[in-house]
Amino acid sequence: MSPAGEEGLAGRLLSGDRRALARVISKIEREDPEAKEIIAEIYPHTGRAVTIGFTGPPGVGKSSIIARLIKLYRAEEKRVGVVSVDPSSPFSRGAILGDRIRLSEHFLDPGVFIRSMGSRGHLGGLAGGSRLAALAMEACGMDVIIYETVGVGQGEVEVASAADTVVLALQPGAGDAVQALKAGVMEIADIFCINKADHPQARNARIEVRQMLEIGQELAPQDWFPPIILTRGDTGEGVEELKEAIASHRAYLEESGRLEERRRAALRDFVVSWATARLEREMRERLRYEDDDLLEMVYTRRLDPISASERIYRSV
Amino acid sequence: MSPAGEEGLAGRLLSGDRRALARVISKIEREDPEAKEIIAEIYPHTGRAVTIGFTGPPGVGKSSIIARLIKLYRAEEKRVGVVSVDPSSPFSRGAILGDRIRLSEHFLDPGVFIRSMGSRGHLGGLAGGSRLAALAMEACGMDVIIYETVGVGQGEVEVASAADTVVLALQPGAGDAVQALKAGVMEIADIFCINKADHPQARNARIEVRQMLEIGQELAPQDWFPPIILTRGDTGEGVEELKEAIASHRAYLEESGRLEERRRAALRDFVVSWATARLEREMRERLRYEDDDLLEMVYTRRLDPISASERIYRSV
Repeated sequence: MSPAGEEGLAGRLLSGDRRALARVISKIEREDPEAKEIIAEIYPHTGRAVTIGFTGPPGVGKSSIIARLIKLYRAEEKRVGVVSVDPSSPFSRGAILGDRIRLSEHFLDPGVFIRSMGSRGHLGGLAGGSRLAALAMEACGMDVIIYETVGVGQGEVEVASAADTVVLALQPGAGDAVQALKAGVMEIADIFCINKADHPQARNARIEVRQMLEIGQELAPQDWFPPIILTRGDTGEGVEELKEAIASHRAYLEESGRLEERRRAALRDFVVSWATARLEREMRERLRYEDDDLLEMVYTRRLDPISASERIYRSV
Repeated sequence: MSPAGEEGLAGRLLSGDRRALARVISKIEREDPEAKEIIAEIYPHTGRAVTIGFTGPPGVGKSSIIARLIKLYRAEEKRVGVVSVDPSSPFSRGAILGDRIRLSEHFLDPGVFIRSMGSRGHLGGLAGGSRLAALAMEACGMDVIIYETVGVGQGEVEVASAADTVVLALQPGAGDAVQALKAGVMEIADIFCINKADHPQARNARIEVRQMLEIGQELAPQDWFPPIILTRGDTGEGVEELKEAIASHRAYLEESGRLEERRRAALRDFVVSWATARLEREMRERLRYEDDDLLEMVYTRRLDPISASERIYRSV
């Protein structure tokens, strides 16, 4: 395969050049056509990294736990990439924010690469640009990739489809568990992490989550029963245990054959969403420049919207 | 136009037959091909209803406020349709749940039609099936359509694009305002409703929201400054004021020409998402039955996912 891109950017990325990595991710974000060629060249060198989706409401302290987790992986000489799509995360802002944990030490560590990405505005959303950024990080030598995300709903499902292991972080006393259950996010978590373990409600929160999981287990039994870990981002308490739970889940995925299944499904989703996003963009552009008449007919009630979309659909 | 569907279902719907309405919505949910014909027939008779998107985290008490609001509209002899895509809502479950407000009275009122819809699994998501259900409700004579939804993120944006007026319900003391701001939901709200006005933090929450809005206003001035209403779902306090705010917003939209602008944009989004959803489904099905080889190449790293999606994209 011949080197793609300016000055063999892909080759430099594969040799572990951090500046090349930063430039490739910027090209991905800008949707530079060159990014596609670079992905094609680096893709055969990916697929071995451990990927972890870290999700939960804003303010739970995900970044502090991730920072602690990075420390533990670094102690084992593992290189860690973080793709943050949480706009409220200190990772996204590159700031310390008065946190007692010094995120900045990770920003300076050559074995850690942190990149925040906007969740909107690039092709394929989180499952698009961030996924490609993670591939680039892996090709550049990262052994562990952490996706940090926020909110409830669709976004989390996308993270789940991209990561091998999904950690759902909640905080005690905020009704988070009930909200997560209602929003359908609990079912995608492989591991629960209740942060702020020193909170008086922490143990109750654990019981609450366990009860919900037990009801779920009765309704639809699964091989894997998600562990519930109490952590403290400020002291690091419980984070070693969290890391072990992630390793156990990984071992379970490999032994049961679920890792392959999950990765195949994730790739299928990625390929379909990417193609869909391309088509959607094409349709939107066509509607903007060409099909104003069609929309005018819909607006004036002379044509219904389903028939209008069928016309566009058939003409693509 | 000739009557479409079994026994002229569209005609019965247009004459105000509730049973026909229920059947049409079921056909929409099942994606019965007949639904498309019915939509084409009823669509010219729609476009006059007032549409309101009601959004906010679970447990805020949206359903209680909506129930109170329905009461006020009913007192003016307006007919009200509710499309609930909040799985935790009592509207969705048709239950009373110990609420002091008797939702059940609305379930029995022929001037009110309540329907809950799953947010996943049907074409076009919330902006798809629920939008069509709302059209059917309007064609059946509903003057006001309320969309109830939950969560933060993409779902809310879809509601906003479907409704003329978006109400964001928050509760005091839960950090909801900050979370909404971080999640980018605040910017889509036309009206804020702080429920549980008797909570000691209610007035602080109002100040907090106002301050955030004022900062937003300085950064990007808008003609419409969202009012912040304190309500109590249990007593009905503030709901009259909320209804007036909805009417003021509607008047503003009409006078400023924004209503037309907003509705055009919503129709464009609807048409594009529907066509995209169709294409996505087609691609997924093709991948399931035909293109296993393509995915196998991606899984085994012989082909990168972007190139794979381009192949599908080009072949559709």
